[in-house]
Amino acid sequence: MLDETAKGVFTIAATPFLPDGALDTQSLDRMVDFYLEKGATGLTILGMMGEAGKLTAAESASVIETVCARANVPVVVGVSAAGFAAIEALTAVAMDKGAAGVMVAPPGSLRTDKEILGYYRTVGERLGDVPWVLQDFPLVTGVKIDTDIILKIVEECPRCVMLKHEDWPGLEKISALRKASDAGARRISILCGNGGQFLLEEMLRGADGAMTGFAYPEMMADVVRLMSAGDETAARDLFDAYLPLVRYESQPGLGLAIRKHILAKRGAIAHPTVRAPGPKLSADTLAEVETLIARQEARLAGL
Amino acid sequence: MLDETAKGVFTIAATPFLPDGALDTQSLDRMVDFYLEKGATGLTILGMMGEAGKLTAAESASVIETVCARANVPVVVGVSAAGFAAIEALTAVAMDKGAAGVMVAPPGSLRTDKEILGYYRTVGERLGDVPWVLQDFPLVTGVKIDTDIILKIVEECPRCVMLKHEDWPGLEKISALRKASDAGARRISILCGNGGQFLLEEMLRGADGAMTGFAYPEMMADVVRLMSAGDETAARDLFDAYLPLVRYESQPGLGLAIRKHILAKRGAIAHPTVRAPGPKLSADTLAEVETLIARQEARLAGL
Amino acid sequence: MLDETAKGVFTIAATPFLPDGALDTQSLDRMVDFYLEKGATGLTILGMMGEAGKLTAAESASVIETVCARANVPVVVGVSAAGFAAIEALTAVAMDKGAAGVMVAPPGSLRTDKEILGYYRTVGERLGDVPWVLQDFPLVTGVKIDTDIILKIVEECPRCVMLKHEDWPGLEKISALRKASDAGARRISILCGNGGQFLLEEMLRGADGAMTGFAYPEMMADVVRLMSAGDETAARDLFDAYLPLVRYESQPGLGLAIRKHILAKRGAIAHPTVRAPGPKLSADTLAEVETLIARQEARLAGL
Amino acid sequence: MLDETAKGVFTIAATPFLPDGALDTQSLDRMVDFYLEKGATGLTILGMMGEAGKLTAAESASVIETVCARANVPVVVGVSAAGFAAIEALTAVAMDKGAAGVMVAPPGSLRTDKEILGYYRTVGERLGDVPWVLQDFPLVTGVKIDTDIILKIVEECPRCVMLKHEDWPGLEKISALRKASDAGARRISILCGNGGQFLLEEMLRGADGAMTGFAYPEMMADVVRLMSAGDETAARDLFDAYLPLVRYESQPGLGLAIRKHILAKRGAIAHPTVRAPGPKLSADTLAEVETLIARQEARLAGL
Repeated sequence: MLDETAKGVFTIAATPFLPDGALDTQSLDRMVDFYLEKGATGLTILGMMGEAGKLTAAESASVIETVCARANVPVVVGVSAAGFAAIEALTAVAMDKGAAGVMVAPPGSLRTDKEILGYYRTVGERLGDVPWVLQDFPLVTGVKIDTDIILKIVEECPRCVMLKHEDWPGLEKISALRKASDAGARRISILCGNGGQFLLEEMLRGADGAMTGFAYPEMMADVVRLMSAGDETAARDLFDAYLPLVRYESQPGLGLAIRKHILAKRGAIAHPTVRAPGPKLSADTLAEVETLIARQEARLAGL
Repeated sequence: MLDETAKGVFTIAATPFLPDGALDTQSLDRMVDFYLEKGATGLTILGMMGEAGKLTAAESASVIETVCARANVPVVVGVSAAGFAAIEALTAVAMDKGAAGVMVAPPGSLRTDKEILGYYRTVGERLGDVPWVLQDFPLVTGVKIDTDIILKIVEECPRCVMLKHEDWPGLEKISALRKASDAGARRISILCGNGGQFLLEEMLRGADGAMTGFAYPEMMADVVRLMSAGDETAARDLFDAYLPLVRYESQPGLGLAIRKHILAKRGAIAHPTVRAPGPKLSADTLAEVETLIARQEARLAGL
Repeated sequence: MLDETAKGVFTIAATPFLPDGALDTQSLDRMVDFYLEKGATGLTILGMMGEAGKLTAAESASVIETVCARANVPVVVGVSAAGFAAIEALTAVAMDKGAAGVMVAPPGSLRTDKEILGYYRTVGERLGDVPWVLQDFPLVTGVKIDTDIILKIVEECPRCVMLKHEDWPGLEKISALRKASDAGARRISILCGNGGQFLLEEMLRGADGAMTGFAYPEMMADVVRLMSAGDETAARDLFDAYLPLVRYESQPGLGLAIRKHILAKRGAIAHPTVRAPGPKLSADTLAEVETLIARQEARLAGL
Repeated sequence: MLDETAKGVFTIAATPFLPDGALDTQSLDRMVDFYLEKGATGLTILGMMGEAGKLTAAESASVIETVCARANVPVVVGVSAAGFAAIEALTAVAMDKGAAGVMVAPPGSLRTDKEILGYYRTVGERLGDVPWVLQDFPLVTGVKIDTDIILKIVEECPRCVMLKHEDWPGLEKISALRKASDAGARRISILCGNGGQFLLEEMLRGADGAMTGFAYPEMMADVVRLMSAGDETAARDLFDAYLPLVRYESQPGLGLAIRKHILAKRGAIAHPTVRAPGPKLSADTLAEVETLIARQEARLAGL
């Protein structure tokens, strides 16, 4: 079961498809192995970058079952939906198949503090004993959650054990949450997203690691390890070597296709297929990715 | 099968729940009968006002099956979803159980004309022979569809047979579409939403009727009938008598709860339950509804 | 000076233009006289419906000067802007020329309760002694202000003397604010917008009147008067007679052009010109307006 | 006068303030000198990062006058406003004081291709002979402009001489525009924003340079120079050395305060003051900036 002590790298897993768009179950196994080899301490599936919204209910169940059966690390399942019935139904499937917890992003219609707090109160009631992750991703959801509201959710919902931190800019939020837990608030795990672009500073501010899907999970695992070991300079050197590609992969919309292209190139999945509606990569983009990878390798070799 | 000649009133059906939030299948039958008695020439289920987003996949299938089995009029099923796999899956269920067609609203991420047209081209390809309704509801979806783009969709997608018109203001759009079909474009059915607030003028502009869920479907049926018969004055008198309540029920968010309260009061469903997340009606609101209904009845008696 | 006891109808004044788009100062005087004859107890200028955003700074000053010189009722000046420097500058002009107070809507970038409260705290500090109106209009600003935040603003900002209430739905907000002032919070004036569509219920909930620009201000003045006198039935009869046109004029974007057309037709302004960017009314729309006015007159004659 | 051949780096100039928030005219001169020393081939003032929205009309005029008097390179003035009257008024001031052209971002209310095209047609008509820049910045404006619409604007508006490119992701847009001009469309200047995060690839795709405000304009000037000279490797080495700070400065909202802090530290302006409403930098942030600058200097020293 997921709990407040979770740390390291929970990779946001892609969902692999065959060239015709069908679910590629065989690649799912291979991809899980790849993520674990590269240092993942957990996996998050059916998130936004997992194309959750493009799957049927049956496909979602199949992904959950395959990943949970293969992975020997905690698996978090994204269950965000427009209504609580769908959230509960998918949570039941997830926990039944061996997930460690679920993740819930706020629906875009929420605006005021009261609405946000009310929403997560209900999430807490409905999910009962299931540990859950609060996903805070304003760029995509349009919902901005104040630090004080996160603290109230943490206070009122004992099974909220983790924040997926993806506010941008969001460094002050981490500092404020850690200051609050130092002062007595329950300390939950904070894993950070945004493609890893701010992982270095996020660790400095008190994050426990990363939850994002950059195609080189080993960078995130090593940065978290080095920062935890107090070797900030080595962490920065490593981070900077990957940064040009991190930046390139972080382009909204396009990023998922770039990520899948790299994962396929690295052998983690068989095909880079993104389900429609989704972007196709141009020859220019592919060439730019190749150049960035070549320079990254050269620079890593020089560290 | 739904086609371009559809007219009259396709009531947007509520989804009835028991006080504990479970699906109220028994009320579904009663509600279908009620709508038909009040003059519905079709039904639309699993729309936004049908709380589609709050149902599990299994519940959606159950609603489709029950309504299609009971109704002897065409049933349109809302199948809007974030990805085409889910749209196709729900469409297959709908058509298998006897629906006449499906309805697709644009995902909120679409912005440019090209994106919107591309999206509906894919809808057309994926749905194959199934007749479908284009739902144009910018207030909720955030997607504004230009009249020329609707005409291109109509031109390129032969199975797009109806526009659910819910732009606001949207009267000029109806006029422009009818002018285009007078000039040779394929003429599709236009049924209008927005709670019926503009039904009078919509009929004057060339609409074929209404597709909305005002709790007195007989008003819409009668207005459409009177306008079609050329009796505009009688239509206006009737419309004006209901307008205070139409207006009150059109309050966003709150409107569904008011509508269900009235449907329950009228015996169409057993309970006014709205699934969470949803509003509760205050005593003030309930009193205001009572007053509006009383005045409406008095005024109708005087016509 | 504006204070918490303000009541009645503060008409949102149009800004009249000549056919070539130049400011029509002569019509400004005529329009002020018209509004006062029809029962306005105050005027609000340079609001959204006054096309404030389309005026130069010099034109805004000219409108303020002309209206303040002509009107013998309190004039509220809309001073919403992206930054406090512009707000202060326009406020200084307004108060110098004899305005009774200013009105400030929140910038669309505000999201959380803390951001909204912080913004209005600064408004309060910057405006010093000037009485001001909090404009709450989420449909246009995109900012949803919780009732508790309004109460905090009222508590912390002694010169916030009025709420321009334009939330939709917003009736419960009025009730909650009045319940709070009954329990000891400072009672501020609440004047309601939304084109007058809910004026009847707003008065029932405790509003002090209307602040909106419906082209027949006498309806609003009479409804407020009748409701204040306890004659709810007469108020409802009057309100219902105007409702078909209230509804038609409330179409977003188009509404201002319709309103100016009617004001010109009634002789309140010389030309119905709306400054670009703005809509042009079609022949169909003009005909629909004529029909609605004719029926309105007939119905009023029968009361 | 600005024309289609503009290239290099048009720095988005900050607007310096004194600690009490008053305009710091003396720093304006110093800042202009600094930008020119660091390689700026043009300046852009009163843009979003110039806090244009927080200035009064008189202050805006003062900034224009000071900068145009001091700079011996073309000055572009941001004149975006809600209405054309304000755009025309500010443009008149700008051109009178010696600006080379103006820049216009779309108002956030525009949605469809037709609305966007119509808006810029009017811009073109209203601005007459004045050369202007189309600002395409969807993350902030909310308006997504299709490449084909940009091409239509270029075709219909001969005085549109430059695109400020700030779509994200936007690399394909540059490629498409250049492909179109290779095929005969008028070729306009494309200068790119987004804090310089993609400057390398933007140059590869055919951009003419940068228009953004990164606090080390020399990086942008050198990258543009090296890329133009065909020395991609040197350009990449330089770019990568600055990237960690480019990334850090690109945080929305916070970025302007970071930029002003660095500009003050570098002596370009006297005070890092950001006008309210705006963020304050924490001690953590300041320390992170220092570390990034120190590493940047070390890395540059090693090139």
